[in-house]
Amino acid sequence: MWAGTVVGTVVATPKDESLTGSKLLLVQPMRFGQGGKTELVVAVDMIGAGTGEQVLVVAGSSARCVTGRAQSAVDAAIIGIIDSIEVNNALLEG
Amino acid sequence: MWAGTVVGTVVATPKDESLTGSKLLLVQPMRFGQGGKTELVVAVDMIGAGTGEQVLVVAGSSARCVTGRAQSAVDAAIIGIIDSIEVNNALLEG
Amino acid sequence: MWAGTVVGTVVATPKDESLTGSKLLLVQPMRFGQGGKTELVVAVDMIGAGTGEQVLVVAGSSARCVTGRAQSAVDAAIIGIIDSIEVNNALLEG
Amino acid sequence: MWAGTVVGTVVATPKDESLTGSKLLLVQPMRFGQGGKTELVVAVDMIGAGTGEQVLVVAGSSARCVTGRAQSAVDAAIIGIIDSIEVNNALLEG
Amino acid sequence: MWAGTVVGTVVATPKDESLTGSKLLLVQPMRFGQGGKTELVVAVDMIGAGTGEQVLVVAGSSARCVTGRAQSAVDAAIIGIIDSIEVNNALLEG
Repeated sequence: MWAGTVVGTVVATPKDESLTGSKLLLVQPMRFGQGGKTELVVAVDMIGAGTGEQVLVVAGSSARCVTGRAQSAVDAAIIGIIDSIEVNNALLEG
Repeated sequence: MWAGTVVGTVVATPKDESLTGSKLLLVQPMRFGQGGKTELVVAVDMIGAGTGEQVLVVAGSSARCVTGRAQSAVDAAIIGIIDSIEVNNALLEG
Repeated sequence: MWAGTVVGTVVATPKDESLTGSKLLLVQPMRFGQGGKTELVVAVDMIGAGTGEQVLVVAGSSARCVTGRAQSAVDAAIIGIIDSIEVNNALLEG
Repeated sequence: MWAGTVVGTVVATPKDESLTGSKLLLVQPMRFGQGGKTELVVAVDMIGAGTGEQVLVVAGSSARCVTGRAQSAVDAAIIGIIDSIEVNNALLEG
Repeated sequence: MWAGTVVGTVVATPKDESLTGSKLLLVQPMRFGQGGKTELVVAVDMIGAGTGEQVLVVAGSSARCVTGRAQSAVDAAIIGIIDSIEVNNALLEG
């Protein structure tokens, strides 16, 4: 999983029927120090997240499992809203 | 999933039989700000997309599921055509 | 798998029920020489690790398997605490 | 999937028995403009490709499926030989 | 799969029981020209490899399959020892 910030929403009308009714959010991975991923991901919201919130994202086949539909067209899902992250900055590499 | 733009088409005559009849499109991930992925992906079109359209791409085993064939040679599929993306630019990191 | 250092903890109260009771740790991949991954991962702790420890992380569907729940929302798990790493620096590329 | 060029061959005598008789090719992802992946992949040839040819590569569990053996040690397979790629260069980002 | 060089060993005493008895090796992906991955991977040795040897690594769920245990905590396995790699340097991009 990775920690990210919801930075937007995606609307797609023609879409795979397994996504009908799903809310699609654009999530940016958090950077800690200089490093970190920069690509944005479109994730299905499973938890009621909104723009600006820090969230926990699961990827791959585990995201599909979370939807409860074995064949859903999902490879990324928001599965938690982050209350707090405690980082020991002395351990972080730049 | 990720948001991308269809930038071209791929034709492959000798190919795995599970791909017979499939339309293969070349998709470039969208960049938001400076960051973002740059590698292009060849995805099976499941939704009727065309060059220049913004699309939603699912990857990995979830893409295989979408084809409805348990053994298909597919790890990326276009599963939606994007109507709109609303991004809060103030939240984006450069 | 990859070797990393636990650099912090993540607390998420609203979360997928498959994560209830799980300890979520923030793990930074080790760099050997100049190279190495820089993105931080949120992993479920399966072994009793703590901040500052060097750990072994498994990713993807194998991480889900380790939890013993076929549908858990997990794509990264800490599965070992590293006693020692012996590296032949002459073999490392910068 | 992704488009690549076969740049070489790999010979490994001691290997997992599920690979016995497989031809292993070294494939470099194509770059379109400046971007693109640079790491080379060792893929099992399922289609009769040769050095210098442009090919279609499938990755992950879908590559394992293609081999027809549920437990094979394969995470990348060449599943097509590319006749042509038509790219709209105006749509490509640098 | 990818080609790499074994650059070290990892010892982890407290670890998932599915790894008991496994030899864990640190593998660096080979670079061909300038490009290539740089992150090091910890892989389970299935073939009897040693430091300094060039090996073939399989990743993801296919690595788990190779161990013969459906639930093992493995996402990378050494499945071959490379005798030779023949690369057409004229085809390599810098």
